[in-house]
Parts: sequence; C-alpha cells; structure tokens
Amino acid sequence: MILRLLRHPGERPARRLLARLHPADIAELVPLLTPDELAELWRTLLELRLATRTLRELDGDARERVLAQLADEQVSTVIARLSAHDAVDLLESLEPARRASLLEALDPARSAQLSNLLRYGPATAGGLMDPEVPRFFADETVAATLERVRTLAEERRLFYLYVVDDREHLLGIVSLWQLVSAAPERRLREILSADVVTVRADTPEEEVAQEFKRYDLLMMPVVDADGRLAGAIHVDDVLDVVEEQATEDLYRLANLDVHEDLATRPARSVRLRLPWLLINLATASLAAFVVSLFQETIAKYVVLAVFMPIVAGMGGNAGTQTLTLMVRGIALGEMDLRRSGAVVARQTLVGFMNGLLTGLALGLAALAWERNAVLSGVLMFAQTLNLTVAGFFGALVPVTLKQMRLDPALGSSIFVTTATDVGGFLSFLGTATLLLSILQP
Amino acid sequence: MILRLLRHPGERPARRLLARLHPADIAELVPLLTPDELAELWRTLLELRLATRTLRELDGDARERVLAQLADEQVSTVIARLSAHDAVDLLESLEPARRASLLEALDPARSAQLSNLLRYGPATAGGLMDPEVPRFFADETVAATLERVRTLAEERRLFYLYVVDDREHLLGIVSLWQLVSAAPERRLREILSADVVTVRADTPEEEVAQEFKRYDLLMMPVVDADGRLAGAIHVDDVLDVVEEQATEDLYRLANLDVHEDLATRPARSVRLRLPWLLINLATASLAAFVVSLFQETIAKYVVLAVFMPIVAGMGGNAGTQTLTLMVRGIALGEMDLRRSGAVVARQTLVGFMNGLLTGLALGLAALAWERNAVLSGVLMFAQTLNLTVAGFFGALVPVTLKQMRLDPALGSSIFVTTATDVGGFLSFLGTATLLLSILQP
Repeated sequence: MILRLLRHPGERPARRLLARLHPADIAELVPLLTPDELAELWRTLLELRLATRTLRELDGDARERVLAQLADEQVSTVIARLSAHDAVDLLESLEPARRASLLEALDPARSAQLSNLLRYGPATAGGLMDPEVPRFFADETVAATLERVRTLAEERRLFYLYVVDDREHLLGIVSLWQLVSAAPERRLREILSADVVTVRADTPEEEVAQEFKRYDLLMMPVVDADGRLAGAIHVDDVLDVVEEQATEDLYRLANLDVHEDLATRPARSVRLRLPWLLINLATASLAAFVVSLFQETIAKYVVLAVFMPIVAGMGGNAGTQTLTLMVRGIALGEMDLRRSGAVVARQTLVGFMNGLLTGLALGLAALAWERNAVLSGVLMFAQTLNLTVAGFFGALVPVTLKQMRLDPALGSSIFVTTATDVGGFLSFLGTATLLLSILQP
Repeated sequence: MILRLLRHPGERPARRLLARLHPADIAELVPLLTPDELAELWRTLLELRLATRTLRELDGDARERVLAQLADEQVSTVIARLSAHDAVDLLESLEPARRASLLEALDPARSAQLSNLLRYGPATAGGLMDPEVPRFFADETVAATLERVRTLAEERRLFYLYVVDDREHLLGIVSLWQLVSAAPERRLREILSADVVTVRADTPEEEVAQEFKRYDLLMMPVVDADGRLAGAIHVDDVLDVVEEQATEDLYRLANLDVHEDLATRPARSVRLRLPWLLINLATASLAAFVVSLFQETIAKYVVLAVFMPIVAGMGGNAGTQTLTLMVRGIALGEMDLRRSGAVVARQTLVGFMNGLLTGLALGLAALAWERNAVLSGVLMFAQTLNLTVAGFFGALVPVTLKQMRLDPALGSSIFVTTATDVGGFLSFLGTATLLLSILQP
C-alpha cells in the first residue's frame, strides 16, 4: 500500500505519508522504484526537506544508483545541505567529471572548502582549514587596512590579520588591537609580528590539535609547502577533531564502526557490527581449538573447566587495561616511538606483577574451595603467565600498528584478547596436563 | 649507600646524586628520613627544581606526612609550580586553616583560580573559568574604555568586553571592533549587544563543552545565581575538558584509574590496576560458579568445554560494543533519558538479531567440525540468548547509572561482562544438560 502511494510521490496522500515516515523507512523503499518514480520522489523529498536524511540512510550501492539517476541540480541541493564530511563522502563516490561539474555548481565558499577536503584529505590541516581567510598585503597602510577590516568585520570574527607578500607568502600577523593602535600612515610590514605558529596543509589533524593545545591558540594559519598562506584553522573546528578522535579510539577498541550512533536504525546496526562479531568468532575458535587439545585432561579433571572462565576473563581485562592505556597515550602524544622497547618491557613487568598478586589470590581462593594444592599451583602459575602475556601483547600490538603507520586501536582488542585466551588456556591446561602426567604416570 | 648520602642532602655528593635520580626513586626514600633530614632534602629538591615531581610521585599517606613537616613557604613554592588540578588535590588534603593561609601566600591570580576550583569543584564552569576577566561598566564612555583597553590589551587577548551594571550584573558584550568603530562620547550601554550566551558557575563542564560546540564560541561569560559576572571560560580550556572527558570514558570502560599514564612507574601502575583486577576476579568467580553447576554434564560431553571460550568471548565482545556506544552517546548528549526504554529495547533487538546470525554461523561451523546436530542446536540457541543478554545489559547498565547520576562508564564493563558470562554459560550448559537428559533418560 505504501509502495503504491509512493509510485505517485507528487500527490497529496503520498506527500502526507512521506512527511510522517522515518527517512530510514523511505530509504528501504527506494530500491523498489523505477527511475521516473525515483526522480519524482526526490523532488518531493527535496521540497519536504527529507532528501538529505533519506540519502544518508541509503547504503553504498543503493546510494550510488540513486545518485546516478538524479539530475545534477538535485544532487547539488543535497550537497549544499549535507555536513562537509558527508558531502565529501558523497563526492568521492562519484566519477571525477561529475564531481567537478557539481563542485562548480555550488556556491564558491562551499566549493572551495569541499575541494580542499578532497585534495588534502579530511584528516589534515588542509581539510580542516577555512581557505577563505582574508589576506592583507605587507605594503598596505594601516589606514587602508582599517577601511578593509571595517567591511570585513561585519560578517566574520576577525581578531588577527594575516600579512602576506605579493606572492602570498605568509610574513606574520597583526592583531586587531595593534592595527587600531598604530599610526594610519605606517605599513603593515612595520607593525607585524613575524613570530607566528603555522602548520603545513598536509599535517595530520591529530598533530594540529596538539599544536593548538600546546600554544593555547584561537586560530592558526595554514601554509603550503612553499610557505604561501593557504587558509586558517579555527579552534572550534579543532574541538570537533579532538572529540571525533576520542570517539574513534573508543569505537575501535570496542570493534564498533565509527558511523554508528544511538540513532542508527537496528538493521544498519546489525550490518555494521556483524563483520566484527564474525572476526571475533573466528579468533575465538582459535581459543576453542587450544582447549580441544586438552579434552582428555578436562575429562579427567572437570574442575579445570570451572576455572576456564576466570583465566579468560582476567586475561581479557588485563589486556584491555594495557591496550587502552597505550592507545590513549599514543593518541595524546605521550609516547616516544623510539623508546617503545622500554614501554613494552614496562607494561610486561606490570602484567607479571599483577599476575603474581592476583594469581596468589586466585590460588588461595581455589585452595579454600577445592582443597587441591596441585590445582592451586597450576592456577597461580597460569594466572601469572596469562597476565604477563596480556601486558606484553597489550603493549606490543598498538606499538607495532603505530610503527606500521596504522591506527593503533584498529582491531587490536581482538588480537590481544585472542593472545590472552590462547596464552591463558595453553598455560593453564598445558601445565595441568603436564603435572597430571607426572603425578599419575 | 644512597640513603647515607641523602642524610646530608645539602652536600655536593648528595646534590649530584639527587640530580641524577628519578623523582620516583627519590620518593621511595622519603619515608625513611627524619624530619630534619626531610626539611633539608626539600630545600635541595626545590633548588634542583625536583620537588614538585617528587611530591607527585608520593602516595596519599606519605605525601600528607611530608606536607605536615614542610614549612608553609616550601609548600607554596611547590603549589605555584603544580598544575591547577594537582594543586587543588594537594590543597584538599590539608586542614582548612592551613589551606587558607597557603592560598593567601600565593600570588592573587593563582589564589583566585584555586579558590574557585575549591569552591565550585574542578568539573564545573566555576572551576574552569578565569575569574580575572575585566569588567566594563555600562555608563563608561567609549573613549574612557578605549583608554583602559589600551593598558589591558598588552597583557591579555581581549576580543570581547563584558559590560556590567554597577552591581556587576552582566548586561551584554561589546566586541573590540564595535568599540573602535563607535563614536568616542557614546556609552557602552548604547552599543552593547544583550544577546549573549552565558553559563551558570555550577554548570557541569560537560554541558559547558556542549554549549561551546553548539554556538562555536571562543569565550563564554560565567555568571552566578543572581546573574553577576563571575568570570569567563576560554575555548582552549574547553579543549582540555573534551579531551579529559574522552580519556575518562575510555579509561573507565577499561577499568583503569584516570591518574595512570604511560609515564607512571610500574609499582604505582600495579597498585592502581590491582583493585579492578581483584573485583574482576570476584565477578569471574560467579561465572566459574555457574560452570561448576554443570560439571556432570561437562564430564559426559567434554566438547562443551571446548565451546565455552566462544560463548564467553562473543558475549563479551557484543556487550562491549553496546556499552561503548551507549557511554559515548550519553557523553555527547545524543541520549534523551526519557526515551531510555526505547533505546534499551532497540539495543536488545540488535543483540538478538546479531545473536541469531552469528549463532547460525557458529552452529554450522560446529556441525562441520563435530558432526553433532544437538550440539549445534544448543550453540545456536545459547549464542542468540547470549547476545540478547549482551544487548540488554550493555544498554541497561549505563542508562541506570546515568539515571542514578553516576558515571555511566564506571565499573559498567565488569557488570556487563559478568552478565554475559553468567547468561551465556547458563543458557549454553543449561540447555545442553536439558537436552542430554531428554535424549539419554
């Protein structure tokens, strides 16, 4: 019924229906429509201001098919309403020729911003900057500059003026206050301060954020490889970077896709989480395989199975502690990669010591519960080894990923958990098997 | 030997030794010294600029004892060098009388800042603000104000002027540009814009950060309950808040103490992580207890033990996914707590669907491996239930903590893992036991 209505999306009943449907639900119907119906639907959605949200709910393939069928003006209207990040995603999925013609159709400021994002990548100073920053020439007088500032100050916050030579090389800055305090006939060249923190357009955004924090800046000029002024970054955009970066670390440690949030509809959540769960299933099978090697031992001493969850749980927890500390330390720039050997050694030592202490607690508890000294000894030994492995891999995995220029958080929790599971079960069940064969030859 | 040298810390050999020792190592020797030796050591450490770092390495009790033995001037020198956060920690550990006299001895700006932190708490707008913000009175003329700005602008960034009435109630703001463009004889009252975003001093810092992002602000005035100007928050301090908040979420989900970082020495790391590991040991014992109820079943079918790591691992992973999504969503203000029922239901549904799908994969893999249809069926069922439990508790725990006005991340991962372990083993081993008794009566 809904579908029948949507086949005539321009008519009143369909419009009323569309206005009430969730964009996610509209998205599910889109693949069922013919090109003509789709074009009409899109016109209606644009009028109802639902087009952008519906497009965002469409997945890769469906989205590309929709975009291919829409007219350029319809796509530009959507791009104008999308966030810069989503707009770049959309533009990147199009052919270069269409991308260029769409960019031209946008208003110049938006077009320049998106071109920069496409050129430098979204995670760089170039992608982050506002390229529209006004340039002031070194040979201009204070009086002429004041006149220009007067017209500019109405539409933007202008606290610092960036002074360039006639080939746009950045020479220095003049604060608004310096400008109004200076004699009108002086030239900017004479009053500028050359002591200015700049950043290259290809600098990763994490480093940009660290510079902002180090110098307590409100804005920072961005230069190209030749020192020419390319734009400026405002601190409020850095605020978003810091937050997104932290969310990414969190998500990656939990094996979540960065595109999911609390508003994601269930079907999409399932699709986004499933790959990670299947990878985890495969790696957990490795732990299961290790256990399967010791079925005979477990058959003789079923109590070993009782303690398996403790071995796995403690290793996982200790590994996550180390991993999180490392990932955050690397993200915040606390880590000197040349000293990574010492850091891994230190974390392994912490794991060993905590393994010894919790192993003691576990061994004593097991002794009280099961009154079996051999079992207690095995648990103590396995727990110590388990947490040593957790410390070692919890530190080694993110350091190695970072040295390979990959994200230290990506997939590392699955790797570390597998290492602690395998290491824990091997040491626990292996030692038990060994001792059993000695005690009962 | 070292200790003998340190008994005369003012002499050359001891000075040379101290300069080479790590503050953490000095800290370990401090409890062994007599009060006189300690006072002399501290004088030397202050000269060597090692006192602050040594103090930071001392733990609660040892630190209090050291502080009790030091003269007020020695403590103030240290406070002046500590970060605001550490300084407040230190001041809070002292008696009120001594705290007040130490605050008086500090330079006025530092003293005002620390008093605010102590009064409003560090995690509020009041703790975050700079109370030293200049007040401009509404009846002042533009000319007089320009004169005052001239003297102020040299030492601080002054982009907006906060205009107050004679009882310091905030009336509005005047931008520097509005000021220099206005006729000199006009009064601030006539040129101010009253449309200004303010924040109350007792607002939590998370909300402050959200306001800054919503309005893209560079600074925001802070007012007390009566609307009087109390200070101003700069965006660079908000940058630190956003970052600290994210680190806290990450750390709490991983059961790490927020005071640990990559530079923490091993002994302290062990102490900080051990409590969480022991709590985890206790909750993991609950899972072990559940397994112990099914020892008979496992003895008959040892292969069940082989699949236990998969049950535990998948439940833990799915629970962490949901939990992380919820904690971050709540922190970023995505969550409407009145709709928490719907959110929990949605996450449970996602867990159920992923449980069904991964259960199918697991069941088929087990069928290929073990050629046992009953085992496969049990695994499918248990996996579905396991991930449903993971979705339910992964969402419910942080929501409940938030509604109790606690941190949604604190301890929640241990609770959720316990729930998935217990739920997973109960459903897996429980169903297996049930089916076995049916098949083999």
